[in-house]
Amino acid sequence: MTEKQHTPEYYNDQPHYPVAIDCIIFCLHEGSLRLLLVRRDFEPCKGEWSLMGGFVRETESLQEAACRVLKSLTGIEGVSMHQIGAFGGVNRDPAERVITIGYSALLNYSDIDHSTLREYDVKWVEVSNVPELIFDHNIMIAEALKQLRRSMFNENLAFSLLPEYFTLTQLQRLFESVLGRKEDKRNFRRRALESFNISATEMIDKESSRRGARLYKFNGQKKKINNY
Amino acid sequence: MTEKQHTPEYYNDQPHYPVAIDCIIFCLHEGSLRLLLVRRDFEPCKGEWSLMGGFVRETESLQEAACRVLKSLTGIEGVSMHQIGAFGGVNRDPAERVITIGYSALLNYSDIDHSTLREYDVKWVEVSNVPELIFDHNIMIAEALKQLRRSMFNENLAFSLLPEYFTLTQLQRLFESVLGRKEDKRNFRRRALESFNISATEMIDKESSRRGARLYKFNGQKKKINNY
Repeated sequence: MTEKQHTPEYYNDQPHYPVAIDCIIFCLHEGSLRLLLVRRDFEPCKGEWSLMGGFVRETESLQEAACRVLKSLTGIEGVSMHQIGAFGGVNRDPAERVITIGYSALLNYSDIDHSTLREYDVKWVEVSNVPELIFDHNIMIAEALKQLRRSMFNENLAFSLLPEYFTLTQLQRLFESVLGRKEDKRNFRRRALESFNISATEMIDKESSRRGARLYKFNGQKKKINNY
Repeated sequence: MTEKQHTPEYYNDQPHYPVAIDCIIFCLHEGSLRLLLVRRDFEPCKGEWSLMGGFVRETESLQEAACRVLKSLTGIEGVSMHQIGAFGGVNRDPAERVITIGYSALLNYSDIDHSTLREYDVKWVEVSNVPELIFDHNIMIAEALKQLRRSMFNENLAFSLLPEYFTLTQLQRLFESVLGRKEDKRNFRRRALESFNISATEMIDKESSRRGARLYKFNGQKKKINNY
Protein backbone atom coordinates (compact mmCIF):
# COMPACT_ATOMS: atom_id res chain seq x y z
CA MET A 1 0.00 0.00 0.00
CA THR A 2 1.19 3.53 -0.67
CA GLU A 3 1.13 6.16 2.04
CA LYS A 4 -2.01 7.81 0.61
CA GLN A 5 -4.75 5.21 0.74
CA HIS A 6 -7.22 6.96 -1.51
CA THR A 7 -10.27 4.97 -2.57
CA PRO A 8 -11.40 6.96 -5.58
CA GLU A 9 -13.94 4.34 -6.63
CA TYR A 10 -16.35 5.89 -4.09
CA TYR A 11 -16.81 8.94 -6.31
CA ASN A 12 -16.36 7.33 -9.73
CA ASP A 13 -19.93 8.09 -10.71
CA GLN A 14 -19.68 11.79 -9.86
CA PRO A 15 -18.89 14.37 -12.54
CA HIS A 16 -15.29 15.60 -12.48
CA TYR A 17 -14.28 19.11 -13.56
CA PRO A 18 -11.06 21.00 -14.19
CA VAL A 19 -10.61 23.48 -11.31
CA ALA A 20 -8.78 26.74 -11.97
CA ILE A 21 -7.71 29.78 -10.05
CA ASP A 22 -7.78 33.33 -11.41
CA CYS A 23 -5.78 36.17 -9.90
CA ILE A 24 -6.98 39.74 -9.47
CA ILE A 25 -3.75 41.62 -8.88
CA PHE A 26 -4.28 45.15 -7.57
CA CYS A 27 -1.65 47.82 -7.28
CA LEU A 28 -1.75 51.46 -6.28
CA HIS A 29 0.36 53.26 -8.84
CA GLU A 30 0.67 56.97 -9.51
CA GLY A 31 -2.27 57.65 -7.22
CA SER A 32 -4.77 55.33 -8.90
CA LEU A 33 -5.81 51.75 -8.21
CA ARG A 34 -4.96 49.46 -11.12
CA LEU A 35 -5.14 45.78 -11.87
CA LEU A 36 -3.16 43.49 -14.10
CA LEU A 37 -4.51 41.95 -17.29
CA VAL A 38 -2.77 39.44 -19.49
CA ARG A 39 -3.31 38.46 -23.09
CA ARG A 40 -4.35 34.81 -22.99
CA ASP A 41 -1.83 32.56 -24.73
CA PHE A 42 -3.85 29.36 -25.09
CA GLU A 43 -7.19 28.27 -26.55
CA PRO A 44 -10.05 28.94 -26.23
CA CYS A 45 -10.10 32.73 -26.59
CA LYS A 46 -6.35 32.88 -27.29
CA GLY A 47 -5.15 36.45 -27.70
CA GLU A 48 -7.96 38.05 -25.68
CA TRP A 49 -7.50 40.06 -22.47
CA SER A 50 -8.13 38.16 -19.27
CA LEU A 51 -7.13 37.70 -15.67
CA MET A 52 -4.02 35.62 -15.13
CA GLY A 53 -4.97 32.11 -14.09
CA GLY A 54 -4.06 28.47 -14.12
CA PHE A 55 -5.36 25.01 -13.40
CA VAL A 56 -5.03 23.57 -9.89
CA ARG A 57 -2.43 20.80 -9.85
CA GLU A 58 -2.93 17.59 -7.92
CA THR A 59 -0.17 18.33 -5.43
CA GLU A 60 -1.02 21.91 -4.45
CA SER A 61 -3.76 23.57 -2.40
CA LEU A 62 -5.91 26.31 -3.93
CA GLN A 63 -3.91 29.02 -2.15
CA GLU A 64 -0.64 27.42 -3.34
CA ALA A 65 -1.93 27.40 -6.93
CA ALA A 66 -2.78 31.11 -6.66
CA CYS A 67 0.65 31.91 -5.22
CA ARG A 68 2.36 29.94 -7.99
CA VAL A 69 0.54 31.96 -10.64
CA LEU A 70 1.31 35.25 -8.86
CA LYS A 71 4.99 34.37 -8.62
CA SER A 72 5.29 33.27 -12.25
CA LEU A 73 3.86 36.62 -13.34
CA THR A 74 5.32 39.15 -10.91
CA GLY A 75 8.23 37.37 -9.22
CA ILE A 76 6.56 38.06 -5.85
CA GLU A 77 6.61 35.33 -3.21
CA GLY A 78 5.36 34.99 0.34
CA VAL A 79 2.14 36.90 -0.18
CA SER A 80 -1.03 35.63 1.47
CA MET A 81 -3.64 35.90 -1.26
CA HIS A 82 -7.24 36.70 -0.45
CA GLN A 83 -9.92 34.30 -1.68
CA ILE A 84 -12.71 36.14 -3.52
CA GLY A 85 -14.95 33.14 -4.00
CA ALA A 86 -15.80 30.31 -6.37
CA PHE A 87 -17.36 30.91 -9.78
CA GLY A 88 -18.96 27.91 -11.38
CA GLY A 89 -21.61 28.84 -13.93
CA VAL A 90 -22.43 25.92 -16.20
CA ASN A 91 -21.39 27.65 -19.42
CA ARG A 92 -18.80 30.12 -18.19
CA ASP A 93 -16.01 28.54 -20.28
CA PRO A 94 -16.83 27.64 -23.91
CA ALA A 95 -14.40 24.70 -23.97
CA GLU A 96 -15.64 22.76 -20.95
CA ARG A 97 -17.21 23.43 -17.59
CA VAL A 98 -14.43 24.78 -15.35
CA ILE A 99 -14.97 25.80 -11.74
CA THR A 100 -12.64 28.66 -10.88
CA ILE A 101 -11.65 30.21 -7.57
CA GLY A 102 -10.77 33.92 -7.59
CA TYR A 103 -7.84 35.15 -5.51
CA SER A 104 -6.75 38.75 -5.12
CA ALA A 105 -3.57 40.42 -3.99
CA LEU A 106 -2.79 44.05 -3.31
CA LEU A 107 0.82 44.73 -4.18
CA ASN A 108 3.29 47.53 -3.76
CA TYR A 109 4.32 48.56 -7.25
CA SER A 110 7.96 48.68 -6.16
CA ASP A 111 7.88 45.01 -5.07
CA ILE A 112 7.09 43.76 -8.56
CA ASP A 113 9.84 42.19 -10.63
CA HIS A 114 9.24 44.00 -13.90
CA SER A 115 11.71 41.82 -15.79
CA THR A 116 9.51 38.78 -15.02
CA LEU A 117 6.41 40.71 -15.99
CA ARG A 118 7.92 41.66 -19.35
CA GLU A 119 7.91 38.00 -20.39
CA TYR A 120 4.13 38.24 -20.68
CA ASP A 121 1.85 40.41 -22.76
CA VAL A 122 0.33 42.39 -19.89
CA LYS A 123 -1.19 45.75 -19.09
CA TRP A 124 -2.19 47.64 -15.94
CA VAL A 125 -5.66 49.14 -16.20
CA GLU A 126 -7.41 51.53 -13.84
CA VAL A 127 -10.21 49.77 -11.96
CA SER A 128 -12.68 52.32 -13.33
CA ASN A 129 -11.64 51.49 -16.86
CA VAL A 130 -11.50 47.69 -17.23
CA PRO A 131 -12.25 46.51 -20.78
CA GLU A 132 -14.56 43.61 -21.59
CA LEU A 133 -12.78 40.38 -20.65
CA ILE A 134 -13.34 36.71 -21.43
CA PHE A 135 -15.76 34.44 -19.55
CA ASP A 136 -16.99 35.91 -16.23
CA HIS A 137 -13.74 37.72 -15.46
CA ASN A 138 -15.46 41.13 -15.24
CA ILE A 139 -17.83 39.70 -12.62
CA MET A 140 -14.88 38.30 -10.66
CA ILE A 141 -13.21 41.71 -10.72
CA ALA A 142 -16.41 43.42 -9.53
CA GLU A 143 -16.58 41.03 -6.57
CA ALA A 144 -12.88 41.53 -5.76
CA LEU A 145 -13.37 45.30 -5.81
CA LYS A 146 -16.41 45.06 -3.55
CA GLN A 147 -14.38 43.12 -1.00
CA LEU A 148 -11.41 45.47 -1.29
CA ARG A 149 -13.66 48.49 -0.77
CA ARG A 150 -15.19 46.91 2.32
CA SER A 151 -11.71 46.35 3.75
CA MET A 152 -10.81 49.98 3.09
CA PHE A 153 -13.57 51.05 5.45
CA ASN A 154 -13.81 48.25 7.95
CA GLU A 155 -10.24 47.28 8.41
CA ASN A 156 -8.26 50.48 7.99
CA LEU A 157 -6.53 49.10 4.93
CA ALA A 158 -6.18 52.61 3.52
CA PHE A 159 -3.48 53.49 6.01
CA SER A 160 -1.27 50.63 4.89
CA LEU A 161 -1.25 52.13 1.42
CA LEU A 162 -0.25 55.62 2.56
CA PRO A 163 3.08 56.83 3.88
CA GLU A 164 3.40 57.23 7.66
CA TYR A 165 2.57 60.95 7.44
CA PHE A 166 0.02 61.96 4.86
CA THR A 167 -2.15 64.91 3.89
CA LEU A 168 -5.94 64.71 3.86
CA THR A 169 -5.72 65.32 0.11
CA GLN A 170 -3.65 62.14 -0.28
CA LEU A 171 -6.20 60.24 1.77
CA GLN A 172 -9.04 61.63 -0.35
CA ARG A 173 -7.26 60.74 -3.63
CA LEU A 174 -6.77 57.16 -2.40
CA PHE A 175 -10.45 56.76 -1.52
CA GLU A 176 -11.54 58.33 -4.79
CA SER A 177 -9.38 55.89 -6.70
CA VAL A 178 -10.56 52.79 -4.85
CA LEU A 179 -14.22 53.83 -4.75
CA GLY A 180 -14.19 55.07 -8.33
CA ARG A 181 -15.93 58.38 -7.64
CA LYS A 182 -15.12 61.97 -6.75
CA GLU A 183 -15.67 63.03 -3.15
CA ASP A 184 -16.65 66.49 -1.93
CA LYS A 185 -13.59 67.88 -0.16
CA ARG A 186 -15.33 69.33 2.89
CA ASN A 187 -17.62 66.31 3.46
CA PHE A 188 -14.80 63.87 2.94
CA ARG A 189 -12.61 65.59 5.54
CA ARG A 190 -15.36 65.76 8.11
CA ARG A 191 -16.21 62.07 7.70
CA ALA A 192 -12.57 60.98 7.64
CA LEU A 193 -11.83 62.77 10.90
CA GLU A 194 -14.94 61.28 12.50
CA SER A 195 -14.50 57.74 11.20
CA PHE A 196 -10.80 57.01 11.34
CA ASN A 197 -8.38 57.00 14.19
CA ILE A 198 -6.16 59.71 12.69
CA SER A 199 -4.73 62.88 14.18
CA ALA A 200 -2.98 66.00 12.98
CA THR A 201 0.76 66.32 13.56
CA GLU A 202 2.78 69.53 13.95
CA MET A 203 4.26 68.93 10.49
CA ILE A 204 3.39 70.70 7.27
CA ASP A 205 3.92 69.25 3.80
CA LYS A 206 5.26 72.16 1.75
CA GLU A 207 5.64 70.32 -1.54
CA SER A 208 2.00 69.87 -2.39
CA SER A 209 0.92 73.52 -2.35
CA ARG A 210 2.27 77.01 -1.68
CA ARG A 211 0.40 77.35 1.62
CA GLY A 212 1.44 73.82 2.61
CA ALA A 213 -0.82 71.10 3.95
CA ARG A 214 -1.07 69.65 7.43
CA LEU A 215 0.35 66.12 7.78
CA TYR A 216 -1.73 63.54 9.63
CA LYS A 217 -0.93 60.14 11.08
CA PHE A 218 -2.91 56.98 11.75
CA ASN A 219 -2.96 55.89 15.40
CA GLY A 220 -4.30 52.36 14.96
CA GLN A 221 -2.71 49.06 14.07
CA LYS A 222 -1.76 48.97 10.41
CA LYS A 223 -2.98 46.00 8.45
CA LYS A 224 -0.52 44.14 6.25
CA ILE A 225 -1.68 45.02 2.77
CA ASN A 226 -1.83 41.45 1.63
CA ASN A 227 -3.91 40.23 4.50
CA TYR A 228 -7.18 42.06 3.89
CA MET B 1 -23.60 20.52 -34.30
CA THR B 2 -25.42 20.65 -30.99
CA GLU B 3 -26.32 23.97 -29.43
CA LYS B 4 -23.47 23.79 -26.91
CA GLN B 5 -20.28 23.67 -28.90
CA HIS B 6 -17.94 22.62 -26.11
CA THR B 7 -14.42 21.65 -27.12
CA PRO B 8 -13.29 19.71 -24.08
CA GLU B 9 -10.13 18.46 -25.75
CA TYR B 10 -8.51 21.81 -24.84
CA TYR B 11 -8.36 20.79 -21.18
CA ASN B 12 -7.95 17.03 -21.55
CA ASP B 13 -4.51 17.11 -19.98
CA GLN B 14 -5.65 19.00 -16.89
CA PRO B 15 -6.59 17.18 -13.67
CA HIS B 16 -10.32 16.84 -13.10
CA TYR B 17 -11.89 16.73 -9.62
CA PRO B 18 -15.30 16.05 -8.14
CA VAL B 19 -16.70 19.40 -6.91
CA ALA B 20 -19.06 19.41 -3.93
CA ILE B 21 -21.03 21.93 -1.94
CA ASP B 22 -21.51 21.78 1.83
CA CYS B 23 -24.27 23.66 3.63
CA ILE B 24 -23.92 25.43 6.97
CA ILE B 25 -27.54 25.86 8.03
CA PHE B 26 -27.98 28.31 10.91
CA CYS B 27 -31.13 28.83 12.89
CA LEU B 28 -31.96 30.94 15.93
CA HIS B 29 -34.00 28.68 18.16
CA GLU B 30 -34.98 29.15 21.81
CA GLY B 31 -32.62 32.10 22.08
CA SER B 32 -29.48 30.35 20.85
CA LEU B 33 -27.80 30.09 17.47
CA ARG B 34 -27.70 26.52 16.24
CA LEU B 35 -26.63 24.69 13.12
CA LEU B 36 -27.73 21.51 11.47
CA LEU B 37 -25.61 18.35 11.36
CA VAL B 38 -26.45 15.17 9.53
CA ARG B 39 -25.17 11.64 9.95
CA ARG B 40 -23.40 10.82 6.68
CA ASP B 41 -25.10 7.96 4.84
CA PHE B 42 -22.42 7.04 2.29
CA GLU B 43 -18.76 6.07 2.29
CA PRO B 44 -16.18 7.16 3.24
CA CYS B 45 -16.88 8.03 6.89
CA LYS B 46 -20.43 6.65 6.70
CA GLY B 47 -22.27 7.12 9.99
CA GLU B 48 -20.20 10.09 11.18
CA TRP B 49 -21.55 13.59 11.86
CA SER B 50 -21.01 16.10 9.08
CA LEU B 51 -22.41 19.07 7.25
CA MET B 52 -25.06 18.27 4.68
CA GLY B 53 -23.56 18.32 1.21
CA GLY B 54 -23.67 16.96 -2.29
CA PHE B 55 -21.78 16.84 -5.55
CA VAL B 56 -22.31 19.56 -8.15
CA ARG B 57 -24.24 18.17 -11.12
CA GLU B 58 -23.36 19.05 -14.68
CA THR B 59 -26.56 21.00 -15.28
CA GLU B 60 -26.65 23.22 -12.18
CA SER B 61 -24.67 26.21 -10.94
CA LEU B 62 -22.93 26.11 -7.55
CA GLN B 63 -25.72 28.17 -5.98
CA GLU B 64 -28.35 25.87 -7.52
CA ALA B 65 -26.56 22.82 -6.10
CA ALA B 66 -26.57 24.42 -2.63
CA CYS B 67 -30.28 25.27 -2.90
CA ARG B 68 -31.10 21.73 -4.02
CA VAL B 69 -29.37 20.30 -0.96
CA LEU B 70 -31.07 22.81 1.36
CA LYS B 71 -34.47 21.98 -0.10
CA SER B 72 -34.00 18.22 0.11
CA LEU B 73 -33.17 18.55 3.80
CA THR B 74 -35.48 21.28 5.07
CA GLY B 75 -38.16 21.67 2.40
CA ILE B 76 -37.20 25.35 2.12
CA GLU B 77 -37.07 26.94 -1.34
CA GLY B 78 -36.33 30.39 -2.69
CA VAL B 79 -33.53 31.17 -0.26
CA SER B 80 -30.44 32.99 -1.51
CA MET B 81 -27.58 31.11 0.06
CA HIS B 82 -24.38 32.87 1.04
CA GLN B 83 -21.10 31.55 -0.32
CA ILE B 84 -18.52 31.02 2.43
CA GLY B 85 -15.65 30.11 0.14
CA ALA B 86 -13.88 27.20 -1.53
CA PHE B 87 -11.99 24.58 0.44
CA GLY B 88 -9.56 22.49 -1.54
CA GLY B 89 -6.81 20.99 0.61
CA VAL B 90 -5.06 18.13 -1.21
CA ASN B 91 -5.96 15.47 1.37
CA ARG B 92 -9.17 16.84 2.85
CA ASP B 93 -11.22 13.82 1.69
CA PRO B 94 -9.69 10.37 2.24
CA ALA B 95 -11.41 8.87 -0.83
CA GLU B 96 -10.25 11.30 -3.48
CA ARG B 97 -9.39 14.96 -3.79
CA VAL B 98 -12.68 16.86 -3.74
CA ILE B 99 -12.91 20.65 -3.96
CA THR B 100 -15.90 21.85 -1.96
CA ILE B 101 -17.68 25.18 -1.82
CA GLY B 102 -19.31 26.14 1.48
CA TYR B 103 -22.72 27.83 1.46
CA SER B 104 -24.59 29.09 4.50
CA ALA B 105 -28.19 29.98 5.18
CA LEU B 106 -29.82 31.59 8.19
CA LEU B 107 -33.33 30.22 8.57
CA ASN B 108 -36.36 30.96 10.65
CA TYR B 109 -37.06 27.84 12.67
CA SER B 110 -40.75 28.11 11.86
CA ASP B 111 -40.08 27.99 8.10
CA ILE B 112 -38.52 24.54 8.27
CA ASP B 113 -40.54 21.54 7.12
CA HIS B 114 -39.85 19.21 10.03
CA SER B 115 -41.49 16.25 8.30
CA THR B 116 -38.82 16.47 5.54
CA LEU B 117 -36.10 16.85 8.13
CA ARG B 118 -37.24 13.72 9.96
CA GLU B 119 -36.33 11.59 6.92
CA TYR B 120 -32.67 12.22 7.81
CA ASP B 121 -30.63 11.44 10.90
CA VAL B 122 -30.00 15.06 11.95
CA LYS B 123 -29.37 17.17 15.02
CA TRP B 124 -29.27 20.88 15.81
CA VAL B 125 -26.18 21.85 17.81
CA GLU B 126 -25.36 25.17 19.46
CA VAL B 127 -22.59 26.93 17.60
CA SER B 128 -20.52 27.02 20.80
CA ASN B 129 -20.81 23.25 21.10
CA VAL B 130 -20.09 21.70 17.69
CA PRO B 131 -18.58 18.18 17.93
CA GLU B 132 -15.62 17.03 15.89
CA LEU B 133 -16.80 16.51 12.30
CA ILE B 134 -15.36 14.75 9.26
CA PHE B 135 -12.81 16.28 6.87
CA ASP B 136 -12.44 20.07 7.27
CA HIS B 137 -16.08 20.67 8.19
CA ASN B 138 -15.17 22.32 11.52
CA ILE B 139 -12.98 24.79 9.65
CA MET B 140 -15.83 25.54 7.23
CA ILE B 141 -18.15 26.21 10.17
CA ALA B 142 -15.60 28.52 11.80
CA GLU B 143 -15.38 30.55 8.58
CA ALA B 144 -19.18 30.67 8.23
CA LEU B 145 -19.50 31.91 11.80
CA LYS B 146 -16.85 34.57 11.25
CA GLN B 147 -18.78 35.89 8.25
CA LEU B 148 -22.11 35.72 10.09
CA ARG B 149 -20.65 37.65 13.06
CA ARG B 150 -19.32 40.33 10.74
CA SER B 151 -22.78 40.73 9.22
CA MET B 152 -24.33 41.06 12.65
CA PHE B 153 -22.24 44.18 13.23
CA ASN B 154 -21.79 45.66 9.80
CA GLU B 155 -25.10 45.00 8.22
CA ASN B 156 -27.61 45.22 11.03
CA LEU B 157 -28.53 41.59 10.56
CA ALA B 158 -29.40 41.29 14.26
CA PHE B 159 -32.57 43.30 13.82
CA SER B 160 -33.93 40.90 11.22
CA LEU B 161 -33.74 38.15 13.81
CA LEU B 162 -35.61 40.08 16.50
CA PRO B 163 -39.30 40.97 16.66
CA GLU B 164 -40.26 44.52 15.68
CA TYR B 165 -40.22 45.65 19.32
CA PHE B 166 -37.57 44.11 21.54
CA THR B 167 -35.95 44.62 24.92
CA LEU B 168 -32.25 45.33 25.31
CA THR B 169 -32.03 42.02 27.15
CA GLN B 170 -33.29 40.20 24.04
CA LEU B 171 -30.72 42.07 21.92
CA GLN B 172 -27.97 41.13 24.38
CA ARG B 173 -28.99 37.45 24.43
CA LEU B 174 -28.90 37.36 20.62
CA PHE B 175 -25.40 38.84 20.48
CA GLU B 176 -24.17 36.53 23.23
CA SER B 177 -25.46 33.54 21.32
CA VAL B 178 -23.93 34.53 17.98
CA LEU B 179 -20.64 35.74 19.44
CA GLY B 180 -20.37 32.81 21.81
CA ARG B 181 -19.50 34.87 24.90
CA LYS B 182 -21.21 36.63 27.79
CA GLU B 183 -21.45 40.41 27.62
CA ASP B 184 -21.41 42.81 30.56
CA LYS B 185 -24.93 44.24 30.77
CA ARG B 186 -24.02 47.89 31.32
CA ASN B 187 -21.26 47.95 28.69
CA PHE B 188 -23.39 46.12 26.17
CA ARG B 189 -26.27 48.59 26.54
CA ARG B 190 -24.04 51.62 26.22
CA ARG B 191 -22.37 50.25 23.07
CA ALA B 192 -25.64 49.08 21.53
CA LEU B 193 -27.24 52.50 21.96
CA GLU B 194 -24.15 54.20 20.48
CA SER B 195 -23.64 51.78 17.60
CA PHE B 196 -27.07 50.90 16.31
CA ASN B 197 -29.84 53.02 14.95
CA ILE B 198 -32.34 52.00 17.66
CA SER B 199 -34.61 54.06 19.87
CA ALA B 200 -36.79 53.54 22.92
CA THR B 201 -40.54 53.37 22.46
CA GLU B 202 -43.23 54.29 24.98
CA MET B 203 -44.02 50.59 25.42
CA ILE B 204 -43.05 48.35 28.31
CA ASP B 205 -42.73 44.57 28.07
CA LYS B 206 -44.33 43.28 31.27
CA GLU B 207 -43.81 39.58 30.63
CA SER B 208 -40.07 39.43 31.06
CA SER B 209 -39.80 40.82 34.60
CA ARG B 210 -41.97 42.23 37.39
CA ARG B 211 -40.73 45.78 36.86
CA GLY B 212 -41.14 45.40 33.10
CA ALA B 213 -38.57 46.30 30.44
CA ARG B 214 -38.54 49.12 27.93
CA LEU B 215 -39.22 48.05 24.34
CA TYR B 216 -36.94 49.41 21.61
CA LYS B 217 -37.23 49.52 17.85
CA PHE B 218 -34.75 49.56 14.98
CA ASN B 219 -35.01 52.61 12.71
CA GLY B 220 -32.91 51.41 9.78
CA GLN B 221 -33.60 49.22 6.80
CA LYS B 222 -33.94 45.60 7.84
CA LYS B 223 -31.83 43.12 5.95
CA LYS B 224 -33.46 39.97 4.62
CA ILE B 225 -31.99 37.28 6.79
CA ASN B 226 -30.93 35.14 3.90
CA ASN B 227 -29.11 37.86 2.11
CA TYR B 228 -26.23 38.57 4.49
